[in-house]
Amino acid sequence: MQSRAIALAKRPEGMPQPDDFTVVTEAVAEPTEGEVQVHNLCMSVDPYMRGRMFDRKSYTPPFQIGEVLTGGAIGRVTASAHPDFVEGDHVQHGFGWREALTTKAANLAQLGDIVAPPSAYLGAIGMPGMTAYVGLLEVGALKDGETVFVSGAAGAVGSIVGQIARLHDCHVLGSAGSGEKVAWLTNALGFDHAFNYHEGDLASHLREGAPEGIDVYFDNVGGEHLQAAIGHMRPFGRIPLCGAISQYNATAAVPGPNNLAMAIGLGLTLRGFIVSHFNHLAAQFREDMERWVTSGDIRYEETVFEGIERAADAFIGLFTGANTGKMIVTLGE
Amino acid sequence: MQSRAIALAKRPEGMPQPDDFTVVTEAVAEPTEGEVQVHNLCMSVDPYMRGRMFDRKSYTPPFQIGEVLTGGAIGRVTASAHPDFVEGDHVQHGFGWREALTTKAANLAQLGDIVAPPSAYLGAIGMPGMTAYVGLLEVGALKDGETVFVSGAAGAVGSIVGQIARLHDCHVLGSAGSGEKVAWLTNALGFDHAFNYHEGDLASHLREGAPEGIDVYFDNVGGEHLQAAIGHMRPFGRIPLCGAISQYNATAAVPGPNNLAMAIGLGLTLRGFIVSHFNHLAAQFREDMERWVTSGDIRYEETVFEGIERAADAFIGLFTGANTGKMIVTLGE
Repeated sequence: MQSRAIALAKRPEGMPQPDDFTVVTEAVAEPTEGEVQVHNLCMSVDPYMRGRMFDRKSYTPPFQIGEVLTGGAIGRVTASAHPDFVEGDHVQHGFGWREALTTKAANLAQLGDIVAPPSAYLGAIGMPGMTAYVGLLEVGALKDGETVFVSGAAGAVGSIVGQIARLHDCHVLGSAGSGEKVAWLTNALGFDHAFNYHEGDLASHLREGAPEGIDVYFDNVGGEHLQAAIGHMRPFGRIPLCGAISQYNATAAVPGPNNLAMAIGLGLTLRGFIVSHFNHLAAQFREDMERWVTSGDIRYEETVFEGIERAADAFIGLFTGANTGKMIVTLGE
Repeated sequence: MQSRAIALAKRPEGMPQPDDFTVVTEAVAEPTEGEVQVHNLCMSVDPYMRGRMFDRKSYTPPFQIGEVLTGGAIGRVTASAHPDFVEGDHVQHGFGWREALTTKAANLAQLGDIVAPPSAYLGAIGMPGMTAYVGLLEVGALKDGETVFVSGAAGAVGSIVGQIARLHDCHVLGSAGSGEKVAWLTNALGFDHAFNYHEGDLASHLREGAPEGIDVYFDNVGGEHLQAAIGHMRPFGRIPLCGAISQYNATAAVPGPNNLAMAIGLGLTLRGFIVSHFNHLAAQFREDMERWVTSGDIRYEETVFEGIERAADAFIGLFTGANTGKMIVTLGE
């Protein structure tokens, strides 16, 4: 059997372009002892993957040119030579960017009983949702009733951050890149205040939405947002540093916030994290988030691109604001 | 009775100059009911005072032009109309930059029994020492045996940071601004590695002194030091933000570290603080530090300027590297 897959054709310079990627064909073997064959249903594209396209040391090793990319995906077992997996099982794994594969059973996680469509386990009930959950509650040490600002608020992580904060009776502000997204945040997700960061200046938006300042700023974007937020924090505020998407395509070093010294007098904490630092909370997260999703307390949206040949477009779209909620590439049924 | 004092003549632009300050004469009244008259023995000049010379909102209100400056001082009671204070008592207060004063008893703290010269209670056993103590142990959450880097290591705070870290069996690096200071750090204070930051590049010094990276960077200076340290931190490292002396005289906003996004993957924490956030630890600090000073576990040095007329020179000297250890202005006996 053959599977189409996406390889890195060359390293992107600045904003990724379609010809940085290429469709290749891989053979998918019949599973031998201890192996499982999987057809992927959907795959994730995430901003962090941009960092792996540079040839540099980071918390995940760089992708190599000519090799098929990897990333989170959900699949269905189509053949198994391992007793723990049977045909039809939903599995989660790190072999996205391809339609099918055969691998050792140890590389697959059983998804078990699911309460939502499989793609939700790449979004709200998956890595982005858990990033929001641990970032806000553990890193941000959120207290009920505080004022929370999240950037990239219409994204896969930000949209969940805001809703978890609302469940904690917080006053929630969000920034997004279009009027449509802003309307979705306030109308559908219950944000108290949302704004289009392309219009007006950030400091004015923050003064308007949080006249008494911000207790927790959940930073998905870095850059000017981080600087504006530091300038508007309340004493002892916390800033979980989750992403810096504004800088991921930068071709030169970008200066940091010029007001970081304000953290001294205000007693601010800036703390970076990635979700895998909190793997010990995975079971608790899944239980909480499945309950919130099934009760309707947490809503999620997906922007769906169909077919492996659209995967590069979906990835590029993360940096052009093409997604509301989680960006998903569907690969089969 | 008359007292000489130092008033702010005009707001410094950039580096403070002698003519930004002026000597004035104040009347010192006989104390009436509830008041105490004090002759100051010594006063403190501290980098944070530079921030109060700007006309801007900060964690301490700005000094006003024409008014006498204030700051930490130790004095001796010369007359008292309050039952809790008798002639000869050592008192600590915030009315430095003058030779004598009369004030309400509530503005004075009894120093009580002292185990070192009064000036030590403005340094190692005072605010700078407590800044080092809470910053390293509470904010930095130091663990025994870690690798600690402190900038401004020959200063009043930094020299204590390094010695407390040594008491916790840490590997200690420090940066200072002259070869003489570097020699003092390694020869007298037991630093494992010290370097003159005017020579060579910071990254090379850090690689040499901490081949496996830094667990705690105690930041007294901000700027290039902070950026270099972020680039050399170990996973889950902590950075207490205590001061940014490299920027205090800046006339325009100074860009922040361009590698702050490294905090994400490494799970770094940057946390600002000022000593008054930890006032609840004052008694514990004094007990620990008096024990360490009397046992010789912690050594301290002072750079002494004699007489109120030298106070401005002493203050300016903080920014030109004139001090090793605590900068003290003596005012009488």
